[in-house]
Amino acid sequence: MPRYKLLVEYDGTPYAGWQRQSGAHTIQQAIETAITGFSGETVTVRGAGRTDAGVHAAGQVAHFDLRRVWQPDKVHNALNAHLAMAGERVSILDVQAVSDDFDARFSATRRHYRYVIINRRAPLTFELNRAWRVSRKLDADAMGAAAQALVGEHDFTTFRSAHCQARSPMKTMEVLDVVRDGERIEIHATARSFLHNQIRSIAGSLEKVGEGTWQVDDISKALRARDRAACGPVAPPEGLYLMRVDYDER
Amino acid sequence: MPRYKLLVEYDGTPYAGWQRQSGAHTIQQAIETAITGFSGETVTVRGAGRTDAGVHAAGQVAHFDLRRVWQPDKVHNALNAHLAMAGERVSILDVQAVSDDFDARFSATRRHYRYVIINRRAPLTFELNRAWRVSRKLDADAMGAAAQALVGEHDFTTFRSAHCQARSPMKTMEVLDVVRDGERIEIHATARSFLHNQIRSIAGSLEKVGEGTWQVDDISKALRARDRAACGPVAPPEGLYLMRVDYDER
Repeated sequence: MPRYKLLVEYDGTPYAGWQRQSGAHTIQQAIETAITGFSGETVTVRGAGRTDAGVHAAGQVAHFDLRRVWQPDKVHNALNAHLAMAGERVSILDVQAVSDDFDARFSATRRHYRYVIINRRAPLTFELNRAWRVSRKLDADAMGAAAQALVGEHDFTTFRSAHCQARSPMKTMEVLDVVRDGERIEIHATARSFLHNQIRSIAGSLEKVGEGTWQVDDISKALRARDRAACGPVAPPEGLYLMRVDYDER
Repeated sequence: MPRYKLLVEYDGTPYAGWQRQSGAHTIQQAIETAITGFSGETVTVRGAGRTDAGVHAAGQVAHFDLRRVWQPDKVHNALNAHLAMAGERVSILDVQAVSDDFDARFSATRRHYRYVIINRRAPLTFELNRAWRVSRKLDADAMGAAAQALVGEHDFTTFRSAHCQARSPMKTMEVLDVVRDGERIEIHATARSFLHNQIRSIAGSLEKVGEGTWQVDDISKALRARDRAACGPVAPPEGLYLMRVDYDER
């Protein structure tokens, strides 16, 4: 049975997140409907990251199987045509045929996320629903310094949603950088995998440092507390982007 | 009578352009309504560039007069509050009190526009209505080389809308650069002023060079023809941004 790997971009604004759920419009469902539309087959699409409602992706990866063999290029054009006809804000950037031991979720070796803050008083136009607007002047250097306490292997209980289903709160943060370019502040986060709401919890806590309500070492204190109550407010979903997923070369 | 200078950002997608017209929703009208909303005064707002329907601005400049004196900061907050309440995609980035000989349109010494092409097969998500998607592979170097024929003072009759009201077709193009960054190609255009549809006409003609239908020197031939029929197709409005307007320091 041929397996296909998809590279997917989406504006998460109109969606109840990646994962299919009854009575809600999701990205997984939009892609599954498009696949059925051109192939006539009913499939399940599995994504590398189950992004929440309102979260975006510039490089989500997913896979699915078909009974019939199609050229990847045909699948690519047909999927985009069906998604466009349905008015979806989902675009397939690439399609590849892969071996059947490839799994978009379990084969992933590294996930790269970005959290975007626009630090200005004026309301957003182009970045509306695409970033978190923060009016108070933020100190991005302090945010970057505080973030370094979270790099490495830690118990991230503090920065984990109550709904998180992961067995362990231990995760290894490989990269956590804060980059300012004018009014734009980006938090770049890389790890093999993340806990539910981990990046938004960290972004909300780093914002506290940026505005001066928290000191730089309050982040490491919060981490060491291993207590959800020690976390800052969870940053809104619209600032978060799944940028890229890495896999081992075979 | 106090005069105020506005720096304005807008997503042009839902608007019939900058200029007020009866029976259509325009950016000028949205700002005038917001001014009346907080001040009770009926005003006319004059913009530096009368952008067409669907054209965006990151740095439009406008001015208006009020009878009553307000602190610029109060005007700034009140305008954004009224625009947000009305659900407008218009944001005021800055407000300054200026002398009454300042005119956003006639005092401008230089206008900077950008035309954005996304050169890829996949449909747009984040850049939908914010760029021109071109599927055919474009040679940005050839586009940049061809553009140089348009720099300097020329008769731009070829690249001018039939509806253009300027008295003369002579304009001086100070900068016309083509910059590629991955799938993104930007055309940067700077001049004291432009003819109606000039940049979109040039962008559509440069695209012809990029795809190889036109040769590099076909652009200078088209310019020398001084004939609207020699122009390539006019590029769509959604790729065009008014980026900045310069004024002499006083």
